[in-house]
Amino acid sequence: MRKSIRKYATRPVDDALLNDLLEQAERTQTMGNLQLYSVVVTRSEEKKRALAPAHFNQPMVTQAPVVLTFCADYHRTTEWALRRQGHPGYDNLLSYQNAATDALLFCQRFCDLAEAAGLGLCFLGTTVYNPLSIIETLELPELVMPVATITLGWPDENPKPSERLPLSAIRHDETYQPITEETIQRDYAAKEALPENQEFVRINGTQTLAQIFTDIRYKATDCRAMSETLREALKRQKFL
Amino acid sequence: MRKSIRKYATRPVDDALLNDLLEQAERTQTMGNLQLYSVVVTRSEEKKRALAPAHFNQPMVTQAPVVLTFCADYHRTTEWALRRQGHPGYDNLLSYQNAATDALLFCQRFCDLAEAAGLGLCFLGTTVYNPLSIIETLELPELVMPVATITLGWPDENPKPSERLPLSAIRHDETYQPITEETIQRDYAAKEALPENQEFVRINGTQTLAQIFTDIRYKATDCRAMSETLREALKRQKFL
Repeated sequence: MRKSIRKYATRPVDDALLNDLLEQAERTQTMGNLQLYSVVVTRSEEKKRALAPAHFNQPMVTQAPVVLTFCADYHRTTEWALRRQGHPGYDNLLSYQNAATDALLFCQRFCDLAEAAGLGLCFLGTTVYNPLSIIETLELPELVMPVATITLGWPDENPKPSERLPLSAIRHDETYQPITEETIQRDYAAKEALPENQEFVRINGTQTLAQIFTDIRYKATDCRAMSETLREALKRQKFL
Repeated sequence: MRKSIRKYATRPVDDALLNDLLEQAERTQTMGNLQLYSVVVTRSEEKKRALAPAHFNQPMVTQAPVVLTFCADYHRTTEWALRRQGHPGYDNLLSYQNAATDALLFCQRFCDLAEAAGLGLCFLGTTVYNPLSIIETLELPELVMPVATITLGWPDENPKPSERLPLSAIRHDETYQPITEETIQRDYAAKEALPENQEFVRINGTQTLAQIFTDIRYKATDCRAMSETLREALKRQKFL
């Protein structure tokens, strides 16, 4: 059962293995078979240190042998089309959505393949919080936008998998079923009752588990401020 | 090797199998373990017919035994938080990006599991082209946005896998490497030389393969118009 790995052995990740996994991942479905993505491989200490602040200096970024930044990429396709008498026009939100989708599907497929090969990884959602600094560090041109980062290596820990909501929380039949007091209770009671989540509440000094997310980790004011940063980055990369 | 399946046998997709695959897919990495996604399962003929126009009436939508619409979903989490004295504020672009990421990772993981179980599927990128009609048909509340659709069933065809670009096209080391005349030639020449792609060019009456995409299938004017529709849908769902 998969789980995020944040501690890695010193054993290096062989480049031939990495290439093999990336090539296999290329089989993932992609819009019009255009492969609107690219991946930047970071192995150098210098670049890892440069990336770390964008990821709130989480130690995995400098400790992992490899950091992969998955990018929505309409630049390469645009450059191809320009050299082939085409008239590309992908400087818009829909094109960003399409390329980000391609990149995320490719990323998830890569993660599955890497885990099946015994590697461990951690997905960093922080990528879209501070995209400007990542864009600079990796020298991403216009129409290339980082959307996901993973740290990769051979596992040096074996954490307990985190819990998940029951299927009733996420599955709807024919139409979206209303969320009610009853469905919330049905779907969240077990999660809230877990000893580790009760401890999590105690450590954070909140009254409820939900408050840790809404009042501390993903606060409205922070989300709005980071939305502006994201918008700025999308403008800079010419997707807005 | 995976490939899109557009023709399905009449054999139904057992609901217990579907649940099992969805539950396994729930192990996918997710932001803060919040699972910011939901999936709407369409089996009824009526709803399939209602969804079809949004997908340009591609025949798979009505022919497949099951259609799955994967949604970025901050509604359920918001409703949970409101009942737990939280202060959710996810009516913004960053929150959409986070939830869409969660939904797409979950979707890709589900696809892999379904294919491993022998099922066939086709990913419909059209979901984000006409989101308003999908939102209405599936009765999606605010903070729920459809981001991906797959048609699912037992395969009744065995198509040839489509080609992919060489790894050199998508892999960059340390920094994004410039796209030049030479890299375009290196990465696209084989694709352009394939007999099926030359035939594709002939049928479409273009001079180059790239022109099929930039001048016919994903034209600048269409992308811009659909960007406006996407923006409208995101506004209606309160993510903008």
